[in-house]
Amino acid sequence: MATGATDSRQRFIDVAIRLFIRHSFAGTSLQMIADEVGVTKAAVYHHFRTREDLLSAVVEPLVEQVRAVIEQAEAQRGRHARADHMLTGYADLVVRNRALMAVLSGDPGAIDMLRSHPHVRDLIERQIKLFADLEPGPGGLVKAAMLLAGTAGAAGPVLIDLDDDTLRQQFVGAGRRMLGLRTPRPPK
Amino acid sequence: MATGATDSRQRFIDVAIRLFIRHSFAGTSLQMIADEVGVTKAAVYHHFRTREDLLSAVVEPLVEQVRAVIEQAEAQRGRHARADHMLTGYADLVVRNRALMAVLSGDPGAIDMLRSHPHVRDLIERQIKLFADLEPGPGGLVKAAMLLAGTAGAAGPVLIDLDDDTLRQQFVGAGRRMLGLRTPRPPK
Repeated sequence: MATGATDSRQRFIDVAIRLFIRHSFAGTSLQMIADEVGVTKAAVYHHFRTREDLLSAVVEPLVEQVRAVIEQAEAQRGRHARADHMLTGYADLVVRNRALMAVLSGDPGAIDMLRSHPHVRDLIERQIKLFADLEPGPGGLVKAAMLLAGTAGAAGPVLIDLDDDTLRQQFVGAGRRMLGLRTPRPPK
Repeated sequence: MATGATDSRQRFIDVAIRLFIRHSFAGTSLQMIADEVGVTKAAVYHHFRTREDLLSAVVEPLVEQVRAVIEQAEAQRGRHARADHMLTGYADLVVRNRALMAVLSGDPGAIDMLRSHPHVRDLIERQIKLFADLEPGPGGLVKAAMLLAGTAGAAGPVLIDLDDDTLRQQFVGAGRRMLGLRTPRPPK
């Protein structure tokens, strides 16, 4: 029974991701999710009481991945190593979640809801700081914001023909160029 | 009478922009716009038959500004001058329309609708080409997409404390760095 409940919970999450990608967070209702899965709205309510609960469940794994990268980056010695670790980790994470990141990064409804979680706001600020520390003043802040928004946004339809490895590599290359980071030498 | 009709049309557009910024395109109905203006839905229908008509009216001035910058950029001699003209013109345009750009750039509902206009798709492709011509292969394409998405996305809440002039100048500086463009010497 427990496995069945977990399965159907995961099924709602998978369908929600598909519908968010197609219709945005604001454009997706619990009714649409119920229709797509082929159950009643009550069956969705059994797992998620609001659309916000469902969005939280959708982004939870992503938030945990971002947190892990941030913590590893903050543990590096020196601001160049910290920024580079954040850059490569973020590029990898965006590429592994291409479609979802493209939607979440720009959906005002989803962003408002995420920002209202203090721990998400805290993670965004720590991410920005890891990049912005390379350059004091507004320049560092603007580059950090462009890098976060640009990487997530560029994961969308424009670059759909590029394979994951190429996209990851180019994100890192462009990010290093914008931040003024040298490409680290490969370990011997 | 003609002026009155134009005024009320413009009033709906202004309210629509405010609501798109707050609720996204998908999250804004004609009914919400009628309620906010304090008129019946029929009064909105008199000017806009669908939400898509209204979005077209909202973005029309923006699209015309983008088209003008693209045409001026394409008329420059040499790919560096063309890319630099596109970069400075786009930064200026994004800053002058900060809040709206931040929403439109990432709203999947709005983007889908805009992309379905062949002339908008054509403008996006010409913009990308102006940047991507600097570097053959996927690198040029990825940098172009990051620059377009990053500039529009970074115009949002993260950088709300920066004034327009600082933001414009930093966008151009970061863009030149990413594209590998030298800062042109000021004219004597």
